[in-house]
Amino acid sequence: MKELSDIGLVGLAVMGENLILNMASKGFTVTAYNRSAEKVEKFIEGRAKGKTIRGAFSIEELVSSLAAPRKIMLMVKAGQAVDDMIEQLIPHLDKGDIIIDGGNTHFPDSNRRTKYLESKGLLYIGTGVSGGEEGALTGPSIMPGGSTAAWSAVKDIFQSISAKVEDGTPCCDWVGEDGAGHFVKMVHNGIEYGDMQLICEAYQIMKELLGLSADEMHEVFKDWNEGELDSYLIEITRDILAFKEDGEPLVEKILDTAGQKGTGKWTAVSALEEGVPLTLIGEAVFARCLSAQKDERVAASKILSGPKPAFEGDKKAFIEDIRQALLASKIVSYAQGYVLMREAAKASGWDLNYGGIALMWRGGCIIRSTFLNKIKDAFDRNPELTNLLVDDYFVEKMMAAQAGWRRVVATAAMNGVPTPTLTSALSYFDGYRHARLPANLLQAQRDYFGAHTYERIDRERGEFFHTNWTGRGGDTASTTYNV
Amino acid sequence: MKELSDIGLVGLAVMGENLILNMASKGFTVTAYNRSAEKVEKFIEGRAKGKTIRGAFSIEELVSSLAAPRKIMLMVKAGQAVDDMIEQLIPHLDKGDIIIDGGNTHFPDSNRRTKYLESKGLLYIGTGVSGGEEGALTGPSIMPGGSTAAWSAVKDIFQSISAKVEDGTPCCDWVGEDGAGHFVKMVHNGIEYGDMQLICEAYQIMKELLGLSADEMHEVFKDWNEGELDSYLIEITRDILAFKEDGEPLVEKILDTAGQKGTGKWTAVSALEEGVPLTLIGEAVFARCLSAQKDERVAASKILSGPKPAFEGDKKAFIEDIRQALLASKIVSYAQGYVLMREAAKASGWDLNYGGIALMWRGGCIIRSTFLNKIKDAFDRNPELTNLLVDDYFVEKMMAAQAGWRRVVATAAMNGVPTPTLTSALSYFDGYRHARLPANLLQAQRDYFGAHTYERIDRERGEFFHTNWTGRGGDTASTTYNV
Repeated sequence: MKELSDIGLVGLAVMGENLILNMASKGFTVTAYNRSAEKVEKFIEGRAKGKTIRGAFSIEELVSSLAAPRKIMLMVKAGQAVDDMIEQLIPHLDKGDIIIDGGNTHFPDSNRRTKYLESKGLLYIGTGVSGGEEGALTGPSIMPGGSTAAWSAVKDIFQSISAKVEDGTPCCDWVGEDGAGHFVKMVHNGIEYGDMQLICEAYQIMKELLGLSADEMHEVFKDWNEGELDSYLIEITRDILAFKEDGEPLVEKILDTAGQKGTGKWTAVSALEEGVPLTLIGEAVFARCLSAQKDERVAASKILSGPKPAFEGDKKAFIEDIRQALLASKIVSYAQGYVLMREAAKASGWDLNYGGIALMWRGGCIIRSTFLNKIKDAFDRNPELTNLLVDDYFVEKMMAAQAGWRRVVATAAMNGVPTPTLTSALSYFDGYRHARLPANLLQAQRDYFGAHTYERIDRERGEFFHTNWTGRGGDTASTTYNV
Repeated sequence: MKELSDIGLVGLAVMGENLILNMASKGFTVTAYNRSAEKVEKFIEGRAKGKTIRGAFSIEELVSSLAAPRKIMLMVKAGQAVDDMIEQLIPHLDKGDIIIDGGNTHFPDSNRRTKYLESKGLLYIGTGVSGGEEGALTGPSIMPGGSTAAWSAVKDIFQSISAKVEDGTPCCDWVGEDGAGHFVKMVHNGIEYGDMQLICEAYQIMKELLGLSADEMHEVFKDWNEGELDSYLIEITRDILAFKEDGEPLVEKILDTAGQKGTGKWTAVSALEEGVPLTLIGEAVFARCLSAQKDERVAASKILSGPKPAFEGDKKAFIEDIRQALLASKIVSYAQGYVLMREAAKASGWDLNYGGIALMWRGGCIIRSTFLNKIKDAFDRNPELTNLLVDDYFVEKMMAAQAGWRRVVATAAMNGVPTPTLTSALSYFDGYRHARLPANLLQAQRDYFGAHTYERIDRERGEFFHTNWTGRGGDTASTTYNV
């Protein structure tokens, strides 16, 4: 064990412990600290025993055990606990030392903390760490942002412990300044919400409309996982559907209420703030909210009847339609997520590497998939790509998928099977490829009742017109209040 | 003119002036104040001449002209200007005096200001005022909330100037404490976003799929306005479609880009915060965002092709289907908006009168419609109604509408016509009436990758289970970070 540790880590819950063990396994010496001395002792005597890990029983001991520039990673509960720990650390640190927050922090907090610590002469990194407890131990996806000057000091550690894709490329690279790392992690989680809901809808259609058993659906997901949908979430869905309890599929015994209180919601709020149509993730978040209203739904199911799902046709062909619907909707979801990142980057002055982000998500995290390679390729072809939907590869996929996708949406609607994200994605796709949307009527309405003015298709942009639609109102355009 | 004015009003833009004229026309004496003396002079010598309106040229003059308890209404730009004016007024006011903010304020600001002014011994009202400039003059919908003790002092003025429904009931009643008035106004505006987008989609389908001309659509909306869709927005759509410029429908010359930066967005964010599935308004806000990406859409339209819309069948019958789709979706939208109000009231401790809110929206404002009477009736039947969709009247409407609605959604999907709100509403309806949604699979996924645990359908709620799905992971459920 080196005399001074390469890095210190605060917070010995499972994520923190696993990250330490991961670092030690890559040859780094780590100091482990926790508010409770008992936890430190237990870890040092237990899982950390015989490894390049030392315990610290005070902030002073932690700080003095670290090589300069000191790197201290916090794996504590997001929120006040991070601020509290930062305040405890500051008096003990020297110029250029680095505090790293690896928790599930909302990105505006990381924006704020980066500025704050830089004002104290320190450096700050807010990093997304994805992959759960197992990922922390064996290789997570790591998305660091904050003080750019800190990157060279932590790069070796982070890239060593991160997941790697086939060719050995680490699923970790510098994302950008301030809260960019946590922002990208947030979008990752939003996309995860979307991917999960899409799979749930595919399952619902197969179960309710096609009458497939869990075993049959297991086979379908197994098949899908061998093609372009190959991904961690499809893979575990395959396994879940095969999992039996007393000979019965366990999944059918699970209550259909999902929580939502976190990053999916933040992603949708962020999209609303940026004015980016992130419809699929929005619907996925709301679908969780609706699932949580279990008692109300049970009551409503006795009052509101619908068509009895009845499928006529070739089931096998329709399963392929569902696969196409899932693929096309997934492309829409990622396209929307990337537009959100682009707009947020613009608003925050971040210089994001979009292909690099796809690569970071390529391994270690929940949304890992071969699909992400295609996104990387698209941004390699055109780093300025405005929307994935207009990249050649994805155009081809959408063109091939849309007929089946439309059949799935139409059939689900006719049969009363709820498919909020599959349909929302289709509406977006159809809206995005429409040069002309009906917002002209909406602008006419706004001008009619509020004199909000409108632009015209036969005039330059930026020229505004008002019409006295009724012959009653004045010709004065809307004014804003002014004292 | 009385010696002391009944009320003072600060901010002489059109809304402020019109409210003053409205008050004077009902026999109240009003003091008009504006930061710029010139504006006051111009108003007093102009539109206010010969009426019970006096000008004030300083805060002191304004305050000393008012009968106790003083009532001062601010019609200034929402945000800092309101806080600034409050600070200017406070030193001149006495215990029990009332400051009223009639601007388009975000409700958390009214929460804060109510508490702040009450801490100073003053009273505060934050009120939504809807109906635009014309409404301000002839009778707006007024939604006041804040210090309940202030209501009796302003009730006469507010109810006198507000719109009235057929039987003379004023479209103004006390909403609730703190920011409840501005909250309800916000939801009103969100619903307005939804109503407008629904109409736009109906128009798009008729235009693009059925090939109807503006004149033909004018006739359709005229017809619709004579039935259960009778409403201000349908009425002005009817008129807009008939409006010609050089013999051509003007609406077709208007650019299809709509802005969104305000209350629709707030409503969707609020729903995300409260965990309420407000999918239709969410999609309506995002539809505006997408409309604003005009250049991207024009470019995409040349790359992404879709089916050529081709309608086969009975146009007249399909127009009736569209009407049913619009009606059903509108019911969903209001149902969702009311759930949002219910949950926000629960979270904030407000005691909202839901039927009364429908009545306030019944006249004066943009979403006024006969439809709102049905909502009032539903809450009269059951003040504890959890969701409009399970009220007898609306159940009947939904049952009658759903076949046509499903045909519209399916046909639009097959033909590539974007219908984000019509389809989103259907997904919600189908989800709400499903006792069983696919969130069981989602919970299995979350337990698989994050040990998040799940509940079971064959056990009590509140009992949580974790499965070692892979045989590899531990049996430990997910832990939260703790230092």
